[in-house]
Amino acid sequence: MTIPVAVVMGSQSDWETMKEACDALSQFGVGWKAEVVSAHRTPKRLVEFAEQAVDEGYQIIVAGAGGAAHLPGMIASLTPLPVLGVPVKSRALSGLDSLLSIVQMPKGVAVGTLAIGASGAWNAGLLAAQMLATRDPDLLKRIADWKASRADEVLADAQLGQESFE
Amino acid sequence: MTIPVAVVMGSQSDWETMKEACDALSQFGVGWKAEVVSAHRTPKRLVEFAEQAVDEGYQIIVAGAGGAAHLPGMIASLTPLPVLGVPVKSRALSGLDSLLSIVQMPKGVAVGTLAIGASGAWNAGLLAAQMLATRDPDLLKRIADWKASRADEVLADAQLGQESFE
Amino acid sequence: MTIPVAVVMGSQSDWETMKEACDALSQFGVGWKAEVVSAHRTPKRLVEFAEQAVDEGYQIIVAGAGGAAHLPGMIASLTPLPVLGVPVKSRALSGLDSLLSIVQMPKGVAVGTLAIGASGAWNAGLLAAQMLATRDPDLLKRIADWKASRADEVLADAQLGQESFE
Amino acid sequence: MTIPVAVVMGSQSDWETMKEACDALSQFGVGWKAEVVSAHRTPKRLVEFAEQAVDEGYQIIVAGAGGAAHLPGMIASLTPLPVLGVPVKSRALSGLDSLLSIVQMPKGVAVGTLAIGASGAWNAGLLAAQMLATRDPDLLKRIADWKASRADEVLADAQLGQESFE
Amino acid sequence: MTIPVAVVMGSQSDWETMKEACDALSQFGVGWKAEVVSAHRTPKRLVEFAEQAVDEGYQIIVAGAGGAAHLPGMIASLTPLPVLGVPVKSRALSGLDSLLSIVQMPKGVAVGTLAIGASGAWNAGLLAAQMLATRDPDLLKRIADWKASRADEVLADAQLGQESFE
Amino acid sequence: MTIPVAVVMGSQSDWETMKEACDALSQFGVGWKAEVVSAHRTPKRLVEFAEQAVDEGYQIIVAGAGGAAHLPGMIASLTPLPVLGVPVKSRALSGLDSLLSIVQMPKGVAVGTLAIGASGAWNAGLLAAQMLATRDPDLLKRIADWKASRADEVLADAQLGQESFE
Amino acid sequence: MTIPVAVVMGSQSDWETMKEACDALSQFGVGWKAEVVSAHRTPKRLVEFAEQAVDEGYQIIVAGAGGAAHLPGMIASLTPLPVLGVPVKSRALSGLDSLLSIVQMPKGVAVGTLAIGASGAWNAGLLAAQMLATRDPDLLKRIADWKASRADEVLADAQLGQESFE
Amino acid sequence: MTIPVAVVMGSQSDWETMKEACDALSQFGVGWKAEVVSAHRTPKRLVEFAEQAVDEGYQIIVAGAGGAAHLPGMIASLTPLPVLGVPVKSRALSGLDSLLSIVQMPKGVAVGTLAIGASGAWNAGLLAAQMLATRDPDLLKRIADWKASRADEVLADAQLGQESFE
Repeated sequence: MTIPVAVVMGSQSDWETMKEACDALSQFGVGWKAEVVSAHRTPKRLVEFAEQAVDEGYQIIVAGAGGAAHLPGMIASLTPLPVLGVPVKSRALSGLDSLLSIVQMPKGVAVGTLAIGASGAWNAGLLAAQMLATRDPDLLKRIADWKASRADEVLADAQLGQESFE
Repeated sequence: MTIPVAVVMGSQSDWETMKEACDALSQFGVGWKAEVVSAHRTPKRLVEFAEQAVDEGYQIIVAGAGGAAHLPGMIASLTPLPVLGVPVKSRALSGLDSLLSIVQMPKGVAVGTLAIGASGAWNAGLLAAQMLATRDPDLLKRIADWKASRADEVLADAQLGQESFE
Repeated sequence: MTIPVAVVMGSQSDWETMKEACDALSQFGVGWKAEVVSAHRTPKRLVEFAEQAVDEGYQIIVAGAGGAAHLPGMIASLTPLPVLGVPVKSRALSGLDSLLSIVQMPKGVAVGTLAIGASGAWNAGLLAAQMLATRDPDLLKRIADWKASRADEVLADAQLGQESFE
Repeated sequence: MTIPVAVVMGSQSDWETMKEACDALSQFGVGWKAEVVSAHRTPKRLVEFAEQAVDEGYQIIVAGAGGAAHLPGMIASLTPLPVLGVPVKSRALSGLDSLLSIVQMPKGVAVGTLAIGASGAWNAGLLAAQMLATRDPDLLKRIADWKASRADEVLADAQLGQESFE
Repeated sequence: MTIPVAVVMGSQSDWETMKEACDALSQFGVGWKAEVVSAHRTPKRLVEFAEQAVDEGYQIIVAGAGGAAHLPGMIASLTPLPVLGVPVKSRALSGLDSLLSIVQMPKGVAVGTLAIGASGAWNAGLLAAQMLATRDPDLLKRIADWKASRADEVLADAQLGQESFE
Repeated sequence: MTIPVAVVMGSQSDWETMKEACDALSQFGVGWKAEVVSAHRTPKRLVEFAEQAVDEGYQIIVAGAGGAAHLPGMIASLTPLPVLGVPVKSRALSGLDSLLSIVQMPKGVAVGTLAIGASGAWNAGLLAAQMLATRDPDLLKRIADWKASRADEVLADAQLGQESFE
Repeated sequence: MTIPVAVVMGSQSDWETMKEACDALSQFGVGWKAEVVSAHRTPKRLVEFAEQAVDEGYQIIVAGAGGAAHLPGMIASLTPLPVLGVPVKSRALSGLDSLLSIVQMPKGVAVGTLAIGASGAWNAGLLAAQMLATRDPDLLKRIADWKASRADEVLADAQLGQESFE
Repeated sequence: MTIPVAVVMGSQSDWETMKEACDALSQFGVGWKAEVVSAHRTPKRLVEFAEQAVDEGYQIIVAGAGGAAHLPGMIASLTPLPVLGVPVKSRALSGLDSLLSIVQMPKGVAVGTLAIGASGAWNAGLLAAQMLATRDPDLLKRIADWKASRADEVLADAQLGQESFE
């Protein structure tokens, strides 16, 4: 049985952010495998990983990196699989550099980019699940049910107070 | 026969940008339907569109908007289908506002965001095709062939000149 | 007796910021009701809320949200009532994303936007009170008196020190 | 018969932007009076204008300025009337300076800020009309009808094309 | 004996920053008087202060404020005296808003702007002293001596280490 | 008879901007001398110029530069005279780089910075005149008269139109 | 005879910018070879190029790219040769994205980054020449002479005008 | 035996960042000497240092500074040696001001700029070593070996986990 989603990141230190993507995938019952594939420290491994991704049976790749973040775009240049990018928050510029380095790809190489940081990572897992769900009615239902349950949660605690004056 | 990709945008004036998404889809033989669905002028139509998207047979939604761009995120909140967002270049802030309004979604609602402007729109079409290709070997091959042909084009004209000195 | 101002926000976590709007309204004796209305988690509730706002007797809506903040603009698209928007400070980008997502509305849908964070929330309450005061001389007087008292406070403690040299 | 909305601006050169506010007001049948009140060149006139605004019968003040834009905030500090601010696009920084100078007001002085440039000016007129409409059912209906008519316009021309493949 | 430099600020909370200006002035033996003059809470006091500044015997005004900082520019519009502006660091945007609100003045009203925060405040005091020194040889000498002593301090501790390899 | 204001700039191409400073000085009857003193191409000349500035009889130095603009700060480090800096608009970043390079000086070296571009240059001339005016009652009067005449101009053309509805 | 400097760029359209680097190298008599090596369209060629760069006899690599610019950093990850990066001006964000994508490299992979656009490209050629000059006294002298001649040019035309008043 | 790399910085407080450059140099067996050379407090020492750098036997200069950072560019204007610049993180603007002040040099004076902060400092040391390695096969091998060992480290710990579902 193959694993549909690869979750890769540029550094061990990105794992705290990127495990959110894995949490989202697990929550929806979608298999994942996470590993460090550094564009800058292991560029040959990056090429190998991206070129073999189709044969490994992956259907979607989620890639996170920070600063001058090249991992998502480089993988996208090396595989026909869809790539989702997560800008990890950087120290000096709070992830604005990560975001622009990932999202501003030139015509011809696409990276579907999510928000900076842990929320973006979780959403990358969700979006990967949504992509797979278009051919998996059970998964689609799990996502739809979860969306409905979130609404219920919000509605249950929605009232925060009021005050009136004559 | 259903059409797999809906391409929607907030305004007629976004069409010049967003038709690039349609061009990319056509190039890979992926059907599309484009329409204006304004989050701000036709919010009820937006809800209706998003809620019926699954039943219409759409598998992916590409949404473009500029400025305080709410269309991609609002559609994503109303459908379990994957949504790709295109920040249309805005007049005063060159699309930085569009980008942040689309990509910085909170945990739980995901929009896969592409680059600002026409390149991003074309890439949204490409990414949609890549998503569909994971279950369509012919489409996957067309994309892979196209990637290879682009490399060939670059390589054919790669030499720009040189000069040497004793 | 109806309540004139609705204070809504995208998430429970925005309440710490948005209660400042309620404090300002209470200070001027203007009734308010606060609730969570999430554009992204409860989009249908958002539509319902906005469409019924006139019939509920609301005269002004104060809406706060962070990141890709769509709540104020979406409400404004669904009601003829005036909407004031509060950009809640976001984690990575300190509310710059919230600000641009709220203020950069296209022609035809207006959101009167206040400063990022708690000061902006308080001012949203004040501005709502000012709007209501144009038809309520007592309220206008309370606001004018309060403005005068603030000046007095400043003037009472205005001297910070001095030093002179021959 | 008094005029409810004053439209003021820092310079003659802002009129091209700010007349959009007047157009919006006229479209909804709301009276306006426009004049140059420069915070920097006529500060005494600014004080006089703001202090007399209530007695002049104004109910709302729309103020536009560019660069280090002080007009909206200074008027707001001098009158209990609600003030709406329009950031006029500036030469070097495209209005980002104007926006921050207007919207980032401290706690206690509120300016409801609209988008940078002509769209923001039009929306300031619309928002002023919406404020007045909460006590004027006819005006409220005109605004609601106009909103509906805009939706109809969008819907009439919404279809942009489609293409399908076997 | 008159005091040559007025140091004013928009709020008590700016004093922590602005006292640096006073420290610099004291260090060079230049008299100062510091007070809160809020553009937004005490606009009439602001006008009065600025209009009387010449008669009070002030020769230079140092003004600090944060966020949508209007104090330096408004004073400059009301007096022919030179005005130096200090952008106080703001909560959400770290003083970028303060800086642009102070420095981007239109043609005809000048504010000599210093760096964001405490260093800028100290430098405002220094620059005021430098201005006065052009007609006061003793003061000019004190400044020149201090500049020389700073160089000596740097030079005394300049060596940080070295390492060599064969 | 000495010339009180030196106007220097990093490059011939800055002259179009910086001549505004000279225009302002001439308008107020203040002598100036303008020359190119490039921090980057003629660093030794920069040192020489700055070190001799006091002996040349200059009382104020106005320095303009663009991009990584080092001229104003370097002159300020080499002379006890007050230095005013003008950020010249740059090609890629519209002068934001020029502004930050000039204004963000460390504690101990002050540059009074004006707005980006021609308006800032004109204001540098005005501010220099204001500094000199504190010891020159005639000049002070010329500046005050000019300020008054500007107000008159604004007031003469202040009315832009009005419209009223029953 | 080997060529010491490779000038590579992501796209044909970058040549207009990058030929400035070649001009600088030619001016100093340093050999160069320019080609398109696209990180995104020809990633395998990029790897091949970078891995063979030492054996090709290159001593320095100058790499230019725009938007999410990955070329300089990816080459730097694949070769021990020094890499200089040139951020090409991009359409929407004027090269700020290019700059951050190139300069914000993580610890362990260095790219010496120059200014955005043509000036930066020219300077990359100059900096490459300077590096080579540390072992080539003739080249060092050519650079030093050129620096001196530039100073002479500036000094020859430095006087821009002056005006004095009684 | 001469020391090939000078590591200079604007202030003692930059040493915490800049010692990273020395660490990198030491790691590769490249000699360095570190000292404070303040552009703003010791401008004459700066000139002297830069002019003597060739005669001192230096081959590369690494210069770090924060805020309006003028040190790297000024040294580059005074020596034909290659200069690498490190933007030190600043208090208010997180080093964005430092980065732009260093990298945006005009045509004719080049500074090879690294990332903001400690990573950039380390990389400056690495890049200096890479430059020297082009004429030192042993050093080149040490760098290549280190690069290889980093890849091995990453690969050893690359697996982060996986989860699969039926």
